[in-house]
Amino acid sequence: MTGTIVIENIYPELDCGRYPVKREVGDRLEVEADIFKEGHDLLAAVVKYREADAADWLEAPMAQVVNDRWRGGFALEKNTRYRYAIEAWVDQFESWRAELEKKLEAGQAVGLELLEGRQLVAAAAERAADDDRSQLRRVVENFDRQTLDAERTDLLLAPALRRLMVRHPDRSTAAACERELEVVADRPAARFAAWYEMFPRSQGRVRGKSATFRDCAARLPEIRSMGFDVVYLVPIHPIGATHRKGPNNTEELVPGAPGSPYAIGSEAGGHKAVHPELGTLEDFRAFVRQAGEHGLEVALDFAIQCSPDHPYLKEHPDWFRYRPDGSIKYAENPPKKYQDIFNVDFYSPAKDEIWREWLDVVLFWIGQGVKIFRVDNPHTKPIAFWEWLIREVQNERPDIIFLAEAFTRPKLLKALAKAGFTQSYTYFTWRNFKQELADYLTELTQSEVKEYLRPNFFTCTPDILPAFLQSGGRPAFIIRLVLAATLSSVYGIYNGFELCEAAAVPGTEEYLDSEKYDYKVWDWDRPGHIKEEIAAINRIRLENPALHELENLRFYPADDDNVLFYGKATLDGSNTVFVAVNLDPFEAHQAVLEFPLQELGIPRDKTFQVEELLTGRKHLWRGHRHIVDLDPRQNPAEIYRITRWAYRDYVETCF
Amino acid sequence: MTGTIVIENIYPELDCGRYPVKREVGDRLEVEADIFKEGHDLLAAVVKYREADAADWLEAPMAQVVNDRWRGGFALEKNTRYRYAIEAWVDQFESWRAELEKKLEAGQAVGLELLEGRQLVAAAAERAADDDRSQLRRVVENFDRQTLDAERTDLLLAPALRRLMVRHPDRSTAAACERELEVVADRPAARFAAWYEMFPRSQGRVRGKSATFRDCAARLPEIRSMGFDVVYLVPIHPIGATHRKGPNNTEELVPGAPGSPYAIGSEAGGHKAVHPELGTLEDFRAFVRQAGEHGLEVALDFAIQCSPDHPYLKEHPDWFRYRPDGSIKYAENPPKKYQDIFNVDFYSPAKDEIWREWLDVVLFWIGQGVKIFRVDNPHTKPIAFWEWLIREVQNERPDIIFLAEAFTRPKLLKALAKAGFTQSYTYFTWRNFKQELADYLTELTQSEVKEYLRPNFFTCTPDILPAFLQSGGRPAFIIRLVLAATLSSVYGIYNGFELCEAAAVPGTEEYLDSEKYDYKVWDWDRPGHIKEEIAAINRIRLENPALHELENLRFYPADDDNVLFYGKATLDGSNTVFVAVNLDPFEAHQAVLEFPLQELGIPRDKTFQVEELLTGRKHLWRGHRHIVDLDPRQNPAEIYRITRWAYRDYVETCF
Repeated sequence: MTGTIVIENIYPELDCGRYPVKREVGDRLEVEADIFKEGHDLLAAVVKYREADAADWLEAPMAQVVNDRWRGGFALEKNTRYRYAIEAWVDQFESWRAELEKKLEAGQAVGLELLEGRQLVAAAAERAADDDRSQLRRVVENFDRQTLDAERTDLLLAPALRRLMVRHPDRSTAAACERELEVVADRPAARFAAWYEMFPRSQGRVRGKSATFRDCAARLPEIRSMGFDVVYLVPIHPIGATHRKGPNNTEELVPGAPGSPYAIGSEAGGHKAVHPELGTLEDFRAFVRQAGEHGLEVALDFAIQCSPDHPYLKEHPDWFRYRPDGSIKYAENPPKKYQDIFNVDFYSPAKDEIWREWLDVVLFWIGQGVKIFRVDNPHTKPIAFWEWLIREVQNERPDIIFLAEAFTRPKLLKALAKAGFTQSYTYFTWRNFKQELADYLTELTQSEVKEYLRPNFFTCTPDILPAFLQSGGRPAFIIRLVLAATLSSVYGIYNGFELCEAAAVPGTEEYLDSEKYDYKVWDWDRPGHIKEEIAAINRIRLENPALHELENLRFYPADDDNVLFYGKATLDGSNTVFVAVNLDPFEAHQAVLEFPLQELGIPRDKTFQVEELLTGRKHLWRGHRHIVDLDPRQNPAEIYRITRWAYRDYVETCF
Repeated sequence: MTGTIVIENIYPELDCGRYPVKREVGDRLEVEADIFKEGHDLLAAVVKYREADAADWLEAPMAQVVNDRWRGGFALEKNTRYRYAIEAWVDQFESWRAELEKKLEAGQAVGLELLEGRQLVAAAAERAADDDRSQLRRVVENFDRQTLDAERTDLLLAPALRRLMVRHPDRSTAAACERELEVVADRPAARFAAWYEMFPRSQGRVRGKSATFRDCAARLPEIRSMGFDVVYLVPIHPIGATHRKGPNNTEELVPGAPGSPYAIGSEAGGHKAVHPELGTLEDFRAFVRQAGEHGLEVALDFAIQCSPDHPYLKEHPDWFRYRPDGSIKYAENPPKKYQDIFNVDFYSPAKDEIWREWLDVVLFWIGQGVKIFRVDNPHTKPIAFWEWLIREVQNERPDIIFLAEAFTRPKLLKALAKAGFTQSYTYFTWRNFKQELADYLTELTQSEVKEYLRPNFFTCTPDILPAFLQSGGRPAFIIRLVLAATLSSVYGIYNGFELCEAAAVPGTEEYLDSEKYDYKVWDWDRPGHIKEEIAAINRIRLENPALHELENLRFYPADDDNVLFYGKATLDGSNTVFVAVNLDPFEAHQAVLEFPLQELGIPRDKTFQVEELLTGRKHLWRGHRHIVDLDPRQNPAEIYRITRWAYRDYVETCF
């Protein structure tokens, strides 16, 4: 026989509150719910909220929107987790007030009703304190001095009393929603950033020799000048020698070959050590410092796997699984064998110890100044482990960002995001056509997925040189750049992309002569590069707040199947950007674009200003249809910023 | 650090398991869920289920459908509540088997793998008992006697061993879904029935005098001959005299006026008494018996409200709310006043006593043979009260059906259905046009609403004579009859509908000279009646199992806005019915109907048989488009049963 106010269908709520939703500092969390009870009483409701470790709840009022749907919200001012809930109660004074007004309107006698109102005010006075109590008591005293219903009515319907009564409701029978919910307020870089991925050992100028963190530092000005915010390093740890892979992933031992940086661990140390060829831990800290001075953050690869030479194998033999012949089980994905990789056994009796050690690894690098981790293959480790680890880290350091490289089945990819990853790799890398891009982006930005998964759109990775880039030439790189950088608010490239590197192992997505297994020396000024284009796109991103958001993406009609047309606007409409991309890297296509003038509040007969942001060309347009010609060699994409033009209501303030 | 198998997105699950879903005895409950874990292990999963009061769980296997979506189900064999849950675990043997097969295919050595397989079989033998244990041990012994990998492989991949291993999984690390869920298996009459509502006192032949239960019994053969299953009586209790309303709801006392049967309670008794004019309690029981002999169930009105003369006011003065002048608060909906109605105060300190008394009232009438209650205005009583009451009743008597007259806001209407009402009145009564009918029915039959709300489509009620019937004449009645009876599987009419009674208080939906405030004598054979049409529709419903279902409703194209075209088919496709209705009661309309031949498995070039069920006319048609001419005076609707025609593959069984 519990309370009878129903609070249900709460938004946002993920999997019945099992997982938190994600927002960023500076956002306002808008909370909605269906709130109602039987009969005709009027209700009042609040969103209750508190920082996760705060004892006291704060409250924000909710208001009815329509049809028993209520809304209220609060500002996420801190980089932390907040908890929120909803409470609702019968607003007895407002219910009484509404009934009274109806009866007055019908000319009915209201003497008894006024006495009932007086009771409500007297009860509120008991709940109130200080000045409010005095004021409420004074209303009751004045009421008792009056004898005429009209005078009493005026007293009880006074707006000032109404405001007082709102402050002192009888919440003794208030109902709460069934669960407390959680929202993670990440720092803004969780949503808006451009990433540059590189192999530290290939940033030098001497063939066949590892570069150092110093060489890496020398590249920072250029990376920053292209407009990137994050420089992401593949693993920087010592590399095992046993079963070391040779160039192009050969299984023979090749003298002098450096091995894959993902075969972590040697005599020189494991996950908390730096590869001696790259420098010292002090050198690494210096690099992080220098990056910071250039406005760049450093992201580190977190790959939970061990080479056969990793110290863990000797120090913690109980962390691994053994086969009937006493050998340790190496990684396999039959028929593929990875004899250079051993996985710790997350299900071993030493599980607790193992989990804590990996947490310790992350904390170690946080201690070196790292605030972003790109996690390798998280989908081969327990989801519950990630949920635990990320929460443990963020409880102390909510500014730490985790990017999940979960190139796996869709539900597992999403589950890792729900479990706590700040950002996720996605299938964007393989989506090339108009309908599939629109469908996928609509899912990411308009469905429940947007509550918990931030897509970090990588155009390519050391493991993935997509067919589109392999055969589409320079225009293909620009097309994918524009798509990644404007469809999502956070995106990345892997070094070589800016040089339009397209040489693949035939029939695969592997780079030919991949850095994964070799030292490489790049000519960063190689002819045909697209560094200016990258810089331009990143500048446009920076200057247009609409591109800092994800959920605001909308697709609009373009009457050619090769032309994708979409737009983003800030909530207040002060910045509005549209993008038209030719998805065909070979041929020019013309399309009629339909601009949603009505959404923009631009009358169909009014002129508006259009600035094409890549060329800086300005136009005055009228009407919602415009033809665009996109030649992949000249202008594979156009980006329009739309503003009103000399259209305002003049208000004369003087003379 | 919990288990790592994720079980989420369970279907059916209502509001995170807060409310049960509804099905009927004889249904199979199909349960689905996303089930997955990290990595590549293969999983096994079961639906666990039990009758609510059973201690032991039964299990039904689940199988993966696609992309980590699993499905399994069980038969709802009893009229009771079932609980269900999901459990999943790593299928170690199947995972091992799959890896082994890949390695064999790649020609890799598998000696170690075979030893690992042997370990799995040996462990399963420990879990097994009796014959299974012996068999599994024998496999291990045979394995140990063999030395060749090929022989050992054959042993471990034998299909018989596979079946054995499935029976003895290692479920020590099994994961369960977070909540147990509930499904109510109602008796089939919850979903399929035709209701006939009547005022017992108006079933006689003497003007100005109450009819009796005996007179009511005399009408049973006719009601049954029209094809109804339920005869629903408005309240049969003593009626208060104080503030009694006169004919046409006048407030003056009119000598001899019987009063509204909803003003329950007089010196003669309250909710557990029968109005003396109708007869005795024994007469009522006799009526219920006689109805049963005619194949009819009796539904009783359950209206929680008291006339000023109800015994409760004297016996339980603490059940009511008092005003500052000491008077009891009567019902109001300002500016309307209902001085003849007092509501008990569900929030009074005597709450527990009050709730139990109403339960006692329901149990009393169940004791008299009543199994169906139509609940008046449930939306003015606490939702939690209904949830409690219905569960209390159905725990003992799961066959009891409750119909909610919740003509209220949509969320409250739905909440009452979730809280436990077996059926609900709906907005159908006011939906007249093609798009609004299709939209509303699509919501009712295709959205989550179908999981918990069974719409009982009343064409009219004593309070509602819709404008469509007031002005549309006889065709309007047939149109609404066909819609109610074929769109929903359960529907009802209020007596007078069969006579096309259309006289209203001008400008309202009130019947003129309503039975609510008077005795009435009807001429049940009045010219222009539609009793044959009703009988025909109810016969068609009975003979076509497709019309016994609700969720199977689908709308199909008809190229005229006045023609609604829809169909229903049984799951096995053995019965397929289509309905075309002219929604305009005044003029004929022609439309091209598009039959979904592909869904029906009828090739476009094959002839099929169509039987129009109202006329019995048969046709042979070909192609999916057919023109229909619907004249409201001749054939306001047509109902087609479609079957294949002479189209089968002959199989010669002899010579």
